[in-house]
This record gives sequence, structure tokens and C-alpha cells, in this order.
Amino acid sequence: MKLIKYPERRDWPELLKRPALNTESLFDTVRTIIDKVKEEGDKAVREYEALFDKVTLQTIIVSPEEMEKGIASVSDELKSAISLAKRNIETFHSSQRFVGEKVSAANGVTCWQKAVGIEKVGLYIPGGTAPLFSTVLMLAVPAKLAGCKEIVLCTPPDKEGNVHPAILFAAWLAGVDKIFKVGGVQAIAAMAYGTETIPKVYKIFGPGNQYVTAAKQLVSLRDVAIDMPAGPSEVEVLADDSANPAFVAADLLSQAEHGVDSQAMLITTSEKLQTEVVAEIERQLANLPRKEIAEKSLNNSKLILVRDIEEALELTNAYAPEHLIIETRDYQKVAEDVVNAGSVFLGSLTPESAGDYASGTNHTLPTNGYAKAYSGVSLDSFIRKITFQEILPEGLRNIGPAIEEMAANEHLDAHKNAVTVRLNALKEMN
Amino acid sequence: MKLIKYPERRDWPELLKRPALNTESLFDTVRTIIDKVKEEGDKAVREYEALFDKVTLQTIIVSPEEMEKGIASVSDELKSAISLAKRNIETFHSSQRFVGEKVSAANGVTCWQKAVGIEKVGLYIPGGTAPLFSTVLMLAVPAKLAGCKEIVLCTPPDKEGNVHPAILFAAWLAGVDKIFKVGGVQAIAAMAYGTETIPKVYKIFGPGNQYVTAAKQLVSLRDVAIDMPAGPSEVEVLADDSANPAFVAADLLSQAEHGVDSQAMLITTSEKLQTEVVAEIERQLANLPRKEIAEKSLNNSKLILVRDIEEALELTNAYAPEHLIIETRDYQKVAEDVVNAGSVFLGSLTPESAGDYASGTNHTLPTNGYAKAYSGVSLDSFIRKITFQEILPEGLRNIGPAIEEMAANEHLDAHKNAVTVRLNALKEMN
Repeated sequence: MKLIKYPERRDWPELLKRPALNTESLFDTVRTIIDKVKEEGDKAVREYEALFDKVTLQTIIVSPEEMEKGIASVSDELKSAISLAKRNIETFHSSQRFVGEKVSAANGVTCWQKAVGIEKVGLYIPGGTAPLFSTVLMLAVPAKLAGCKEIVLCTPPDKEGNVHPAILFAAWLAGVDKIFKVGGVQAIAAMAYGTETIPKVYKIFGPGNQYVTAAKQLVSLRDVAIDMPAGPSEVEVLADDSANPAFVAADLLSQAEHGVDSQAMLITTSEKLQTEVVAEIERQLANLPRKEIAEKSLNNSKLILVRDIEEALELTNAYAPEHLIIETRDYQKVAEDVVNAGSVFLGSLTPESAGDYASGTNHTLPTNGYAKAYSGVSLDSFIRKITFQEILPEGLRNIGPAIEEMAANEHLDAHKNAVTVRLNALKEMN
Repeated sequence: MKLIKYPERRDWPELLKRPALNTESLFDTVRTIIDKVKEEGDKAVREYEALFDKVTLQTIIVSPEEMEKGIASVSDELKSAISLAKRNIETFHSSQRFVGEKVSAANGVTCWQKAVGIEKVGLYIPGGTAPLFSTVLMLAVPAKLAGCKEIVLCTPPDKEGNVHPAILFAAWLAGVDKIFKVGGVQAIAAMAYGTETIPKVYKIFGPGNQYVTAAKQLVSLRDVAIDMPAGPSEVEVLADDSANPAFVAADLLSQAEHGVDSQAMLITTSEKLQTEVVAEIERQLANLPRKEIAEKSLNNSKLILVRDIEEALELTNAYAPEHLIIETRDYQKVAEDVVNAGSVFLGSLTPESAGDYASGTNHTLPTNGYAKAYSGVSLDSFIRKITFQEILPEGLRNIGPAIEEMAANEHLDAHKNAVTVRLNALKEMN
């Protein structure tokens, strides 16, 4: 942890620097795997599973029997927690449904947008020590609500060829159509191009390591859409002297345990809080199972003391955190001036964990300052808004001459002519 | 033009193939220019302008005097046409404003989304023979409506160092803040990283040649968002025997004149129409100034006869055209089953030109089949939806235990602890 007091504005850029990402350097490695899967399909997928996940798969798809067995082995407590989270995510994302209204900018000209679900989507759920069943909900629930016709999920199996039961349960509950025991670059390639078993999708969602990220970027250059560029997770707590140091420390630690490259920042107007949070972190850290990871990650942490809330907000907007927790007396007012953040948590009883799991908001959010240009995943991520327009005779008479004038000035005479032939036909009819 | 009658379904993929895009092969060339602009700023920009646009610039920014002089030289007819188009674009895009509602999935838990404009956006307008002032409107009008604080525009100047007056007028009318006389890869690099004169932006919009496209893709891997991947423009007309062959021919030609790689498709249930459209194209083509381009582009054109409207729709959804014109008797009903398209034009009096210029819809649309996963540019493209949440004591008691259960099962104990410390504090308070 670095304690910083009243930094000068010229030092802000250095202060807010994130660890550099360079997925481009992995493109060559990743391209080889992608090309092989594209050419050889399931055969290549199996070979890479044997190589990287050390597993020889009989079947790539999770069978109904595996599904049933897996679901049965999840505890009732966890099932009910996942079900509660699913309901809340569903409620919040349902409220995001878009219904376009018909608009007439000119008489006889009607335009509107219509939301249509992306037909085929692919969800990637990483493996590793922690089974990210919460991410299954965050991606599959809105996909289902959006009306996506085919929702496929790829996740690496363990060495025995099994997928974690909680992932199977969450996928079943959220309405995933097919689950494949495939991970890494080979999973991204399979969903981007399709194999004999794994369907090609139009958009790929989900987190992953740097190779998965590089693969998503590479296939997104031409062949398939992706949710957003990815980077290490991060949180900023913006707090004044009313904040509870134990809560702030817990929030910073819950980010730090994610990975050694995670970043947890405190921006505060209270020197007392800055000091107390350090002590609380030390105290809470001692009891954490993922202490080692958190300790390393805390090397990236900065606890920054600033002059006032205005400065805290400016620094926050310059940082554009993925998660922003505001623990100040007048947090509603402070929140109004947030312009760059992924998801904002208001008040002392709203930890990031709530949004990570069960309050209903999505936890797939823009990292690495991408919040300046990107939104987190929402129902929007699974739809397209198609525009429609209908022009009646009166409408063409109203806007036709302007179209002709503009097209002529852009030297696009056939564009002009498409209006002229119609206006002439209308004249003849009269 | 290729006339195809009743193709077999197995031949569809071949039939719907587009010219291959490979911007990746340009990455090395483009990277050199980007890196130089990133390092040397305005100096490099001037050098590349001299090299590529054959112009020595005194100042990169368009001065107020240039602006005034340019605007004064635009004819009143064109000014009034552009103003009409601007009003309609403004009306339609205003209707797209998003206001998030507060949602309580559980008692004491409130979540909402808030739309916030992207603070800095960059618009790229290509040079060449045709001054694309219509694209200025399509990008700058929604940017302004979205509340973007800084809207900059880059466009290559002519050999005398001037920008086309109609571009200046459209930019002024739409509220662009700064216009720079810079084109090509150097313009994209300057907006992605900033120079002494040109501000760094968070998202870059606009069409361009293959080098501009490659540059946008390369900078979007890490440093700045872009509107969408680009490809050659395309139109599909879906028509039955009620369609007017002269209108259909005019629509196909207005796409064909865009460029030699444009694609114009007809999918029809009427053999008579298929024949008549060919004759009409020959007739209309003779009078077009851009005849040569259109003729070459028509080599990519396919006029496909199918068995019925259902088959026409399936083929259409498999193609996912950028522009889709539906000229059938019951076009409203047919439109209901369109799931993959950028923008849809309904009935015989609704040419693509209307949406290209003045009906109010946006003309920046997904090409190359990207309509399967992407929407066209809209007000959404210029905002982010930030999520907010506030949890009260009752709310934490409601969802806290589920969060604890889920976090524990994902082996994220600090996430659990961020809830536990708060639930304990609530207990102590009682």
C-alpha cells in the first residue's frame, strides 16, 4: 500500500497508472491455436484440452446425465442463494427492456427502432480454483431475457473431465442451451468459427486470462463481436470522515483477493480514515485464506488523501474505476457528479460484493479506464436495435427535394435518382 | 450482375459470401504511423499530411476565419437541405434518450442505470471526391444530444489545405467543437493519443479506407473505443411482383455507385421482376456520372429468385444486410420477421437515400454481416449507462446471507467478509 497525501495535479497521470496490458504480443501464439481449431474443429479442440487442461475427453458436450448428477450434488443452501441472485438479476435486467417509439420527424415519414436479441451467443466461464457460477448468471440471465435463441457456454473441465456442479446448476437455472467442456483459446476459437459439435456464435462474452483475452480480441477484428476489452479488476472507495474504516478495509481487500494484478484505491478527504484503514487492512488480512494473493495485490494499492470532495471527484473521474464505492455523508449528492465509472455503490451498507452477486446489477464491467467509453454488460449487450422507416407520398414530397440536393452535392447521383424516379411517379399519378 | 434462380440451401453460404476483409495485414504499416504520431505529435502529423495529402499546413486547426468564409460559400439551397436533415436526425435521436428507472429487486435494495455522455469523442470524415457532410450530421448531432463535452472532427484537406465548405457548415450546424485538417491513419492516431493541438478522445467514429479501418482497429485493442468494425457498404432489396422495377433498379444502383466493392442484392419471388430489373439497371446506368464505378460494383451483384417470401426472409436473415429495402405487398408483416439487418426501409416510397440523408435515422450501420451482432450508430453509441445501487439495513439483511453463501463457494472470503462486517455492525446497533 502506498499512502499519498495531497498529490499535485501534475502527478495525477502517474498516480492513476494501471499495470500495462499488452495482449498484442500474444497474438502470434494465440493465432496458431485459433487457426488449427478453425481448420480441424473438434479434433483440434480435443488435442488442446489434452495439452492445456490435461484431460482426455470422451464427449465435449455436458450430457443430460452429467447435468442431473451435478445439480443433485449442489447443497440446498447454495441452490437457494443462487436462485435468489438469479431472481434479482432477472428483475433488474427485465427493467432494461427497450421498446422503440414511432417518431415522425416530418409528416409522412415514420422511423423507429426495434430491439431484437442476438440469435447465437457464447459465454466463456474460466476454470481455476474458484468456480465462477456468479458469472454464469450475469451472462446467461440477460441473454435469455433478450431472446437469444441459442446460448452456449464453454468452461474448462477439471482433470477428471468434470465441470463444477455449481456452474452446471447456475447454467441450468439461467437457461443455457448447451455446455461444452472446453477452455482457453480453443474455446474462443470454437465459438467464433464453430466445430462439428460446438455452434458458431455471433458474440462472445466473459472473462478469462490474458490468452483468452487476446483470442477474443483477435477473433473480434473480423469474425465475431465480443462484450468488451478486458483488464484486471479494480475498486475505488471514495470516502470522507464519516466512513467506517472496517468497511472500507473489507471492500479494498475483497478487490485485492481477486488476483495479484487487481487494484484497490482509496481516495479520501480524511487523514484519520487513511491511517485507520491501513490498520484495519492489516488486521483483516491476517484471517484471509487468499492472504498471499491479497498481499501482493496490495502493492498496487494507493490510499490517497485529497483536499476536498470536489478534488476527490475529479480524481475519480480521471481514474474511471470499474467499481466505485461512495462512503460519504451526502453520497447521493456526490454520486451526481460521477461521470466515469462502471458501477457505483452508495453508502456504508452497499459493498461491491452485493453487485458482484445478488443485488441485481451486472458484474461484467469496464476495467482499465474503459469506463470512459464503455458500459458494463446489460440487456443492451444481447440485443441489436434495428431501425425501420416508412415513407408515404406526403413524406417523400416533404423530404425528397432535400435528399436530392444533398445527394447531388455529395456527387452521388444514383442516390438522388432513387428519389427522383419516385417523385416523378407520384407526379404522374396525380 | 448474376441472375440466380431457386438456389439450393446448401449453396447459400457461397451465394452470400462477401469480399474478404483483411485489415490485419495492414497492421504493420499502420503501426509505424501510429507510433510516430504517438511519439512526435503535431510534427509527425504535419509530415504525414505532406506525404499523403500533398499539403503543407500552416495550422492544423480550422480557424474561425476559415470557418466563416467556408460557411458563407455554401449555397442557400444546400444550407436549407442540410438544416432540414439536421432537424430530422435531431428529432429521431432525441427520442432515443434513456432515462433509467429505480428498481427494487429486494426490499431495501435499489438499483438503477444512468446515461452519461462520453466526455470526448472524435469524428473522422474521409476526403476524396465526395464531401461527406451527411456523415458529419450523422455523428455530430447524436454526440451533441448525448452531452459529449468535447466533439472533435478530423478530415483530410485538399491540396490547397482547405476543407470542403459543406463539411464546415454541417460541423458548425451540428455543434462540433474543433475541426482539424488531418486525414488517414495520422488522424486516427492523433485522436487516440492526443498531440499538442489535437485532444485525445475516448471513442472514435466514422468511415474510412482500409488503412483508416486498420488504424481504428489497432488503437481499439487497448487505448480507445471505436464505433464498429467497417466493411464495404451494401443493400438488399426484398421484393415480390408488386414492386416497381424502376425503383428497385434505382435502389440497387444507388448502392453500386458507392464503390467498386459495394454489394447490391435483389431477393425476389417474381421471375418477371428479376428480368425487368436487369433491363431497368441497364437503362438507368447509362445516365449516371459514376457509371464506371457502378458497373464494376454490379459484378458483385446477385439477383436471386426464390420460391416464396418465407425463403426470401430466411435468406435475408442469413445475409444480414446493412440496408434492407422491403418492397412487397404486405411489407409491414414481412418486416416483423426480419431479425438480422442494420436499417430497414418499408414500401415502395422509402429508398435507402432517405435514411442516408434526411429521414432522421442514422446511416452509420453494420456492414459485412455484422448486423448479426451490432447495431448501427444511435444515441446509445455516445453514452455509457452507469449502474448505481443503494442498500439499506433491511436490504442487506435480505440479500446479505445469499452473498455470503455464494462468495464462500467461489472461495472469495474477503468478498464474504465485506458483507459479514456490515451485518455484524447492524446486529450490534440493535
